[in-house]
Amino acid sequence: MKWAGGPSGRLRLLDQSLLPARVRWLTCRHPREVFSAIRMLRVRGAPAIGVAAGYAMVLAARRCSTLARLGREGAVLAGARPTAVNLSWAVKRMLALRTLDAAALLREARAIHAEDADACRRIGLAGLPLLRGAVLTHCNAGSLATGGIGTALAAVYEALRRGRAPRVFSCETRPLFQGARLTAWELSRAGADVTLLVDAAAAGLLASGTIGSVWVGADRIASNGDTANKVGTYAHALAARANGVPFYVAAPRSTFDPSIRTGREIRIEQRGAEEVLAPLGRRAAPRGVPAWNPAFDITPARLITAFVTEAGVLRPPFGPAIRRILNTGSR
Amino acid sequence: MKWAGGPSGRLRLLDQSLLPARVRWLTCRHPREVFSAIRMLRVRGAPAIGVAAGYAMVLAARRCSTLARLGREGAVLAGARPTAVNLSWAVKRMLALRTLDAAALLREARAIHAEDADACRRIGLAGLPLLRGAVLTHCNAGSLATGGIGTALAAVYEALRRGRAPRVFSCETRPLFQGARLTAWELSRAGADVTLLVDAAAAGLLASGTIGSVWVGADRIASNGDTANKVGTYAHALAARANGVPFYVAAPRSTFDPSIRTGREIRIEQRGAEEVLAPLGRRAAPRGVPAWNPAFDITPARLITAFVTEAGVLRPPFGPAIRRILNTGSR
Repeated sequence: MKWAGGPSGRLRLLDQSLLPARVRWLTCRHPREVFSAIRMLRVRGAPAIGVAAGYAMVLAARRCSTLARLGREGAVLAGARPTAVNLSWAVKRMLALRTLDAAALLREARAIHAEDADACRRIGLAGLPLLRGAVLTHCNAGSLATGGIGTALAAVYEALRRGRAPRVFSCETRPLFQGARLTAWELSRAGADVTLLVDAAAAGLLASGTIGSVWVGADRIASNGDTANKVGTYAHALAARANGVPFYVAAPRSTFDPSIRTGREIRIEQRGAEEVLAPLGRRAAPRGVPAWNPAFDITPARLITAFVTEAGVLRPPFGPAIRRILNTGSR
Repeated sequence: MKWAGGPSGRLRLLDQSLLPARVRWLTCRHPREVFSAIRMLRVRGAPAIGVAAGYAMVLAARRCSTLARLGREGAVLAGARPTAVNLSWAVKRMLALRTLDAAALLREARAIHAEDADACRRIGLAGLPLLRGAVLTHCNAGSLATGGIGTALAAVYEALRRGRAPRVFSCETRPLFQGARLTAWELSRAGADVTLLVDAAAAGLLASGTIGSVWVGADRIASNGDTANKVGTYAHALAARANGVPFYVAAPRSTFDPSIRTGREIRIEQRGAEEVLAPLGRRAAPRGVPAWNPAFDITPARLITAFVTEAGVLRPPFGPAIRRILNTGSR
């Protein structure tokens, strides 16, 4: 993701829905184009959609004559996807400036972007000592999902930078194959040793003793540590626990939501049935059969070994540890 | 699956690899055609490949001048797929006749087929009282997978026959989508209320309280109750246990393998990477990325609430219960 030009510039987004077959950059000049890109998953990943939303507010301010109007544009944008808290967090932060001045808004959007990249680096450094043996990951929480080197994959990138080549097993991540399309793409480009598996094979792989640790990102983390992340995460956490494999959730502070107590309060986005019925656009199921298609699930805090954040590694009990990092420094 | 004609007849198989888009019947006159159909998953499901193997031995006997040659044909056939025990069980049973007489062999193959259909009915009757609330199932353990009304789905069919309409959630079952292609197809044709979900969504569904019981088939069951079944089964069993939902394995006695003590001794078939990399023939992953593609996994006996067999419902401790049913009546 790149901002091109100054305060009257435009947002350029790599269209992730076309990867790995095509590498195409979208140019957004209107906030509704960013809204649509978020909704259609052309840009996805909780931190990345937060960064995109920051820039979208710069685009929005040009078209608004009052702060009230900008507030309404922000509310629309924040509703593009309901589960990732980073989206509404970034919109709120931009609105908190209480200005329509494009230069000031662009500085804030760039700050969100830079802070996210910095958070990724710190997450990678904090996670590096925990990286032992082969890694299992789900969905894409790498550079495509963030403004930097990723969350779940940050420690892998730091290891690569040090000449180590950790083996990574990437779950394909149905229904939209972010593991096969995105994680495999960015890791193999970075020279990592990456192997794909279907989501359903992860539990058997964990039982086989091959995996040293499981790493996932997060879309929203409740005050008690319950974590919403891509559907399938909960099953991997159960299998990791059953087989004594550490399960790490890597996320910046902007993914924690102190306004909710437990995972029960997290709204899970339901998506259209066609993603299930017609994988990659090719029909698998007979006509007339419906599908249940939640985009996320909730992993209870008790299954999580630690959170890896830019403010360090959080161990249980998570409640006080989360409160501590949210009350320290800027958020 | 149908045998057409007398002892010099032929085997007709519904090509399951083309469902639900096309309903095509294959005609096999040579045992290697059956071998190939089993290997290519045109016929699949542990009981069904046992039945097919019985008929294939009738075809083989025509081309063999000695029992030793028939034995070699049987060994080839039994090697078509390694995990399901029903395949080698049926071949052994045919060879035990020690004859090349096509009429005698056809009688035995028809007996295997009829006994399997009968076992399915009995499994359905035994399972019916356990069927409460909505059912979650994985892969296809229905009529397509057996010589009768299925194993995991037998109780559902018995309920339908009584005018009840149990709600069934079917996991799509990557990599080959047997849940989406086969279970959804046969259940919707039978008038059942079936909903698809991706395999990774099953744990969240189990946590939601929607599911009354989980039903799966089996490919091989060790003496202690450890069960090999389609990859993904183990994860569902973990999620069922974590959420207090009963987990039933439905299988005929021919799926139990008293020659092995635990699941560690079961050989898991590894299949080609393309099934993972290119779902339904459409490429998802970037070129050059490998895949790990086991067809099955092992569910430890401790996660199984009960086995539902034609000889009744087996509760823990499974060792003695399994020995009892294998020592009773014909196998």
